Amino acid sequence: MHYGYFNGTIAPTDQLAVGVTDLSLLRGYGLFDYFLTYNGRPFQWDWYWERFQNSAMRMHLPLPLTKAETYAIVLELIEQSGGLDVGVRFILTGGYSSDSISIEKPNLLILTESIHATPVVQYEQGIKVILDEYVREMAEVKSTDYKRVILLAQAIRAAGASDVLYQKGGEISELSRSNFFLIKGNQLITPNRNILYGITRRTVIQLAQRDFDVVERPVLLSDLYDAEEAFTTSSTKKVLPITQVGDLTIGDGKVGPKAKFLLEQFDELIANW
Amino acid sequence: MHYGYFNGTIAPTDQLAVGVTDLSLLRGYGLFDYFLTYNGRPFQWDWYWERFQNSAMRMHLPLPLTKAETYAIVLELIEQSGGLDVGVRFILTGGYSSDSISIEKPNLLILTESIHATPVVQYEQGIKVILDEYVREMAEVKSTDYKRVILLAQAIRAAGASDVLYQKGGEISELSRSNFFLIKGNQLITPNRNILYGITRRTVIQLAQRDFDVVERPVLLSDLYDAEEAFTTSSTKKVLPITQVGDLTIGDGKVGPKAKFLLEQFDELIANW
Repeated sequence: MHYGYFNGTIAPTDQLAVGVTDLSLLRGYGLFDYFLTYNGRPFQWDWYWERFQNSAMRMHLPLPLTKAETYAIVLELIEQSGGLDVGVRFILTGGYSSDSISIEKPNLLILTESIHATPVVQYEQGIKVILDEYVREMAEVKSTDYKRVILLAQAIRAAGASDVLYQKGGEISELSRSNFFLIKGNQLITPNRNILYGITRRTVIQLAQRDFDVVERPVLLSDLYDAEEAFTTSSTKKVLPITQVGDLTIGDGKVGPKAKFLLEQFDELIANW
Repeated sequence: MHYGYFNGTIAPTDQLAVGVTDLSLLRGYGLFDYFLTYNGRPFQWDWYWERFQNSAMRMHLPLPLTKAETYAIVLELIEQSGGLDVGVRFILTGGYSSDSISIEKPNLLILTESIHATPVVQYEQGIKVILDEYVREMAEVKSTDYKRVILLAQAIRAAGASDVLYQKGGEISELSRSNFFLIKGNQLITPNRNILYGITRRTVIQLAQRDFDVVERPVLLSDLYDAEEAFTTSSTKKVLPITQVGDLTIGDGKVGPKAKFLLEQFDELIANW
């Protein structure tokens, strides 16, 4: 059983509910963040808090709690979850609105959730993604706007794919909920704009500095043709190889040694977190 | 006191609440519609239902009720509202999701609300709008995505304006929650694409056919310069004159006779509804 915090109260998640004048329901106005715990400790807490704070500022929503207050609640929720590692979701909405459009006071939810681990077979075989011509609005803000990928769910399934890779005018940005990397020789290449700046992306870049030449730059569809490997990063996917993009096979179509190496580095980091 | 319907139950609106795994909260995945009653009867019910059904289809959400079932609930809610005319809001969300991303079963809410009438002074003096370079995604679907105008709230207030007029690459689409019309001589001109096809827009077009040459076409910013009058339409605004767009004064800056005439026509229609 999981617990959650909502505006001052901690209760089992299935007993939490949001009133129907909330601007997330009426106007899609909300943002969130999501991180995992390892060995009972929030992973990269400082970086996640910084991003959450930035998203809130960009969406003009004052945070109702300080960093320290929030951390104390997170630790209490983790404890109530019974010792297993969890996902922690922050949701900050426009709050209840008496005229259905104006922000009065944001609503803050903090939830713990079971972690949906990525299937092992996906690490062994890599995943396929389809392409979509799209770029997220305010991509660097973790808003709750995920209409696009939910609308594409049928197309993704029909293609035997796991996710979508967004590109606009030939420039690649990101997957629906994770970042994108390419490997060419000693270069580790990743888009530098129109993206949500992932904390796992940042962690992998930091780990990779020792062994790769890390290049953050605009990445084009044409970059896919001579890439040896590709992978995606997110908190739950960690470092997940991509072996096919639409009809195009990446490298030899098998999971490559360099993505595997980076996943090992990442697994070592979290084992000792 | 207002009442609402949520998945089979009717209760006072302030007792209704949505669980925290709903995709509107987690992923901004929802759509809505909104109409008024006149003399206790839903205005243009057939047209609103048609649009709501179309929005649901376009967002891959099966409707849990038939048209007749929905109408019966609407009538019951109107009755419980105590005889005053009300706004009726339909909200259809992606529903509760066990993996935080997949649609399982939509949630449907039907709420009655007090009508926020447009201030009389706005009809007498016209309103000012600011311009913004933007076009809504899937504009013809009444999704709950209103991030843009909420983010602009401070800029609108600072400019002494009431709303925002969206244009992209010089082509005008709509205001944040209402449609846009221009008058040049005998021509009544309104954008024909990248818009939410308003039911008040449709009603006004129908009324205007008798006296105007109605032209639905792409409308450019340059069209503003020789427009005699401009106005916006929505269920709560009816026919509301616009006398200033950014720094540009429309016509002589006063409410014109043709917009006033169309408002009278509209008021006559609803008085006899």
